Amino acid sequence: MDTLDIAKVASENSVSIDTIWILIAAVLVFFMQAGFGMVEAGFTRAKNVGNIIMKNLMDLSIGSLVFWFVGFSIMFGPSVGGFIGGFNFFFTADYGNDVPDMAILIFQTMFAATAATIVSGAMAERTRFGVYLIFTLIITLVIYPISGHWVWGDGWLAEMGFHDFAGSTVVHSVGGWVALAGAAIVGPRLGKYTNGKVNAIPGHNMVLGALGVFILWLGWFGFNPGSELAASGDSVFAIAHIFVTTNLSAVASVVVTMFLTWKRYGKPDLSMTLNGALAGLVAITAGTDIVSPGGAVIIGALAGVVLVFGIELIDKVLKVDDPVGAITVHGLVGAFGTIMVGLFATEGGVFYGGGWSLFGVQVLGVVVIAAWALGTAFLLFTILKHTTGLRVSEKEEREGLDIHEHGQSSYNY
Amino acid sequence: MDTLDIAKVASENSVSIDTIWILIAAVLVFFMQAGFGMVEAGFTRAKNVGNIIMKNLMDLSIGSLVFWFVGFSIMFGPSVGGFIGGFNFFFTADYGNDVPDMAILIFQTMFAATAATIVSGAMAERTRFGVYLIFTLIITLVIYPISGHWVWGDGWLAEMGFHDFAGSTVVHSVGGWVALAGAAIVGPRLGKYTNGKVNAIPGHNMVLGALGVFILWLGWFGFNPGSELAASGDSVFAIAHIFVTTNLSAVASVVVTMFLTWKRYGKPDLSMTLNGALAGLVAITAGTDIVSPGGAVIIGALAGVVLVFGIELIDKVLKVDDPVGAITVHGLVGAFGTIMVGLFATEGGVFYGGGWSLFGVQVLGVVVIAAWALGTAFLLFTILKHTTGLRVSEKEEREGLDIHEHGQSSYNY
Amino acid sequence: MDTLDIAKVASENSVSIDTIWILIAAVLVFFMQAGFGMVEAGFTRAKNVGNIIMKNLMDLSIGSLVFWFVGFSIMFGPSVGGFIGGFNFFFTADYGNDVPDMAILIFQTMFAATAATIVSGAMAERTRFGVYLIFTLIITLVIYPISGHWVWGDGWLAEMGFHDFAGSTVVHSVGGWVALAGAAIVGPRLGKYTNGKVNAIPGHNMVLGALGVFILWLGWFGFNPGSELAASGDSVFAIAHIFVTTNLSAVASVVVTMFLTWKRYGKPDLSMTLNGALAGLVAITAGTDIVSPGGAVIIGALAGVVLVFGIELIDKVLKVDDPVGAITVHGLVGAFGTIMVGLFATEGGVFYGGGWSLFGVQVLGVVVIAAWALGTAFLLFTILKHTTGLRVSEKEEREGLDIHEHGQSSYNY
Repeated sequence: MDTLDIAKVASENSVSIDTIWILIAAVLVFFMQAGFGMVEAGFTRAKNVGNIIMKNLMDLSIGSLVFWFVGFSIMFGPSVGGFIGGFNFFFTADYGNDVPDMAILIFQTMFAATAATIVSGAMAERTRFGVYLIFTLIITLVIYPISGHWVWGDGWLAEMGFHDFAGSTVVHSVGGWVALAGAAIVGPRLGKYTNGKVNAIPGHNMVLGALGVFILWLGWFGFNPGSELAASGDSVFAIAHIFVTTNLSAVASVVVTMFLTWKRYGKPDLSMTLNGALAGLVAITAGTDIVSPGGAVIIGALAGVVLVFGIELIDKVLKVDDPVGAITVHGLVGAFGTIMVGLFATEGGVFYGGGWSLFGVQVLGVVVIAAWALGTAFLLFTILKHTTGLRVSEKEEREGLDIHEHGQSSYNY
Repeated sequence: MDTLDIAKVASENSVSIDTIWILIAAVLVFFMQAGFGMVEAGFTRAKNVGNIIMKNLMDLSIGSLVFWFVGFSIMFGPSVGGFIGGFNFFFTADYGNDVPDMAILIFQTMFAATAATIVSGAMAERTRFGVYLIFTLIITLVIYPISGHWVWGDGWLAEMGFHDFAGSTVVHSVGGWVALAGAAIVGPRLGKYTNGKVNAIPGHNMVLGALGVFILWLGWFGFNPGSELAASGDSVFAIAHIFVTTNLSAVASVVVTMFLTWKRYGKPDLSMTLNGALAGLVAITAGTDIVSPGGAVIIGALAGVVLVFGIELIDKVLKVDDPVGAITVHGLVGAFGTIMVGLFATEGGVFYGGGWSLFGVQVLGVVVIAAWALGTAFLLFTILKHTTGLRVSEKEEREGLDIHEHGQSSYNY
Repeated sequence: MDTLDIAKVASENSVSIDTIWILIAAVLVFFMQAGFGMVEAGFTRAKNVGNIIMKNLMDLSIGSLVFWFVGFSIMFGPSVGGFIGGFNFFFTADYGNDVPDMAILIFQTMFAATAATIVSGAMAERTRFGVYLIFTLIITLVIYPISGHWVWGDGWLAEMGFHDFAGSTVVHSVGGWVALAGAAIVGPRLGKYTNGKVNAIPGHNMVLGALGVFILWLGWFGFNPGSELAASGDSVFAIAHIFVTTNLSAVASVVVTMFLTWKRYGKPDLSMTLNGALAGLVAITAGTDIVSPGGAVIIGALAGVVLVFGIELIDKVLKVDDPVGAITVHGLVGAFGTIMVGLFATEGGVFYGGGWSLFGVQVLGVVVIAAWALGTAFLLFTILKHTTGLRVSEKEEREGLDIHEHGQSSYNY
């Protein structure tokens, strides 16, 4: 080979390295669908488990079609005034990446599906299946890609320096806020709040819940390091760093959640501690690239605190019934983690000089995107409530969505 | 480094990239064994669940030993007249790959195990364990590698231009046709067909089934893109394309299956929709590399239709009892998807000029391999039926294969 | 690009290839936590399942924090006399790897967590949760990294040529011996040994157990090939070889275990055969790089024999109650596999010339590390027994650890 040929091979190898990294990450993020499915199934009751699985399957499927059809371009197409990407149908545009555009498409598709699936858990056990199809379509077609564009698609928040590396806000908070609007509007499950009393409705299978959490944790090793979108050159150091901060935040949150529930409730609580792992993962997602390992431990530890009090706030004070805790885990903790970037960001290993200006931008981004997601979701669910109706009948809810919506029980022992 | 050294590093890097891609894909395809295990366990009854797991474990184990011992060489050894590879024992030959031969061996071993495991589901809940060991040996030693050689080992179908990129026919249809012969010859489960009535025997755990489907879907991201057997140079564009077409076909099939069952049976059916995902994946496997994303959506959508009517055909018209739907999902849909390559193939992004000649070759390959797999399997199962016997006793079937064949119940709550 | 630039790209690509290999392997080893969780949950009773999951979650979390805080440096820091690594807190040292140190940290963290988690299974269903936190801390802080240093950290056993490639002894035997001390000292579960009779206490869910085994098998494709810590240059051939020997040993053990239990107990035993897969994987881990495929089949086959007789020895002769068989699978089989390296090692494809000297070193290492792990664990558990107490009350054990230690039942159907 002459020098030119060698240069070509070497540079193609870099592209290959970047691409297979993105694709492997996409595989891991895909698997998070199974994780969400298991968590949501385990944390709800046996009579509704097929329904929640079916919803998970459908948001992945509808989301994948929508994102290929036009959603990707809304999020990543050439910016129209920093607000929205220029439409392109059937993914025919050239997005000018070094890596194959298709690799970016599949990776981002899995992210979009993740945002949508967060909602299913918070609205579980009483939301109609047919209506779910409609709003999952709107979420992946409109709500998620537009605010996503602001941050990841040359939008106005990106311009201002808002830092959300892998989506504490773009993915998780958006999902969480939509979930909040949805759970509030669809109303609590029968028997959840009776005569001013808050009743716990325990999930039917904690092993499923735990399996789901482990799968989600696994998927996060694609979610965060994959968002580097490269593994060649210096990126490989970034990726290794991201692995460490991601894991440290998760484990710190687990430990804190465990001890905090022990102190508050008298015993170390399993389902809360499982959610603690997710809280640590959600919280670090925004700053995983620029927070130090020590910073990650602190953010994760605080995420455990936010989780425990957040769940109490949503459940007992606001009286919004969220069977799996998704509003807190993804919405509140996602917002918290994003803001923490303003305090814990480092540059070249030392604490960041951006100071209050970065902190301010982080708060601004969190607030504006919360307003966007809550507002559009409020509108969406309100319209659906008064047109198609959001909720199954009381009889269906009592007897189970599996029998009534799908004609079969999921368990037949 | 001088130029020669650099060239060596660059070219070794390409080999490393290709190899780790193959190995990661092998890991994902390995995990499909867990997926099949969970699907087959979930779709059958609790009393037989340990038995089906045990069969899955054994076909992986026997298949791995056989493929290393001689099976690989039968499939990929130097062709003897285009019909069979030249034997080599204990994998001592040099197969002349750039990547390590061992990487190809482990990848292909996982494929062979996949073909074998398809059969266990269709014959579940009444087939003797000891006999299963015998026929899984014959499948991985004889049936699968010989027809596999025709397509992937310089065989006569490869010569004619038959296109089955990742095995809609080589793996899935072969498994499906052997399953058809087996399920027909072993006969339906007790109580399945009574007085001309077709009785549904619901699976015991749809969450397991769903988990299995998600794991299989995950595995398919190794199955299809791994079959490129490279990730360096232009291959990385091929791989990214394969990811997109694989996923789009799956999700299109999910959506169509869901709506079609809704229309036909009055409610969106969970177990059928889960199988819909698998149908979309099986169908695209043959042409995933040369079908456009739009073509993949169409193939997937049609696969959902083939699935629903195929299941009805096998179950209600042919009255072959297939507890998990494997004959349709892998056999019929695999054949369908292979033929669709003749209609939807593209070259350089435009529809393929091969036209009817490719279509004809695809049909020919599908028919001949169906005849091979059905014929050899018919012979095999007929011999076993009249020698060792294929089926457990009526008492054993009623009380469960777990207790009688393995001496323990799988569930002890 | 000029030659210098090209050389830089090519050599950075090699680093990227090595690093992403290590990171992907770390992801797979991480997932083994889910595998252990499912195996231990499935093989124990429903009333204790949340507790065992919680313990798995905590050893991962505590282990991750400890290993980052100081554990890694104890194992891999500059050797102090071959006995212990020099302390470094918060992972601030430069360990002089070509790949990012952080990649090594995350990989080794997952290994440490694996060693710790082995113990939870053997002591399941009667060990106090709070005390578990203490001893899992000591294991990952002291016991595991010190003996690990001897072998993997320029320690005295490494100096002598002790060969334990991926940890049959360093990880599995250490875990197994600590488990032996723990299970012996905490005592058998109520009802296990009554009036000299040995009673089987069947696990509550074999499907969970099987899923766990498949996940562990998957994880082993990270555990073993990842331990090469590289994938560029010749390493890629080593990796492919490791895949093949790892899988062949596992499947050979499955087949032998299945037939041996069939012969001894009258029926092929599912839970034993599942453990057979793990035994084959543990046994090959020490020599996976230098044992031939044929040697791997023999080692795996013998591992199945060691497993069956080992389980009987521990359970019926020594009367140590190990609900999941961890002492045999990890301890005895790990020791056996490490010693087998002395008999089956090859060099350049032929049997190794080291002869009895290697064999002697292997035996020495196995014995010394067993003494270390058993001795320290004996001390640890004895102290805990007489201070905090190791065991839940009889009432708690009868009614279940889930209710009493965590305030909720894991299953609510």
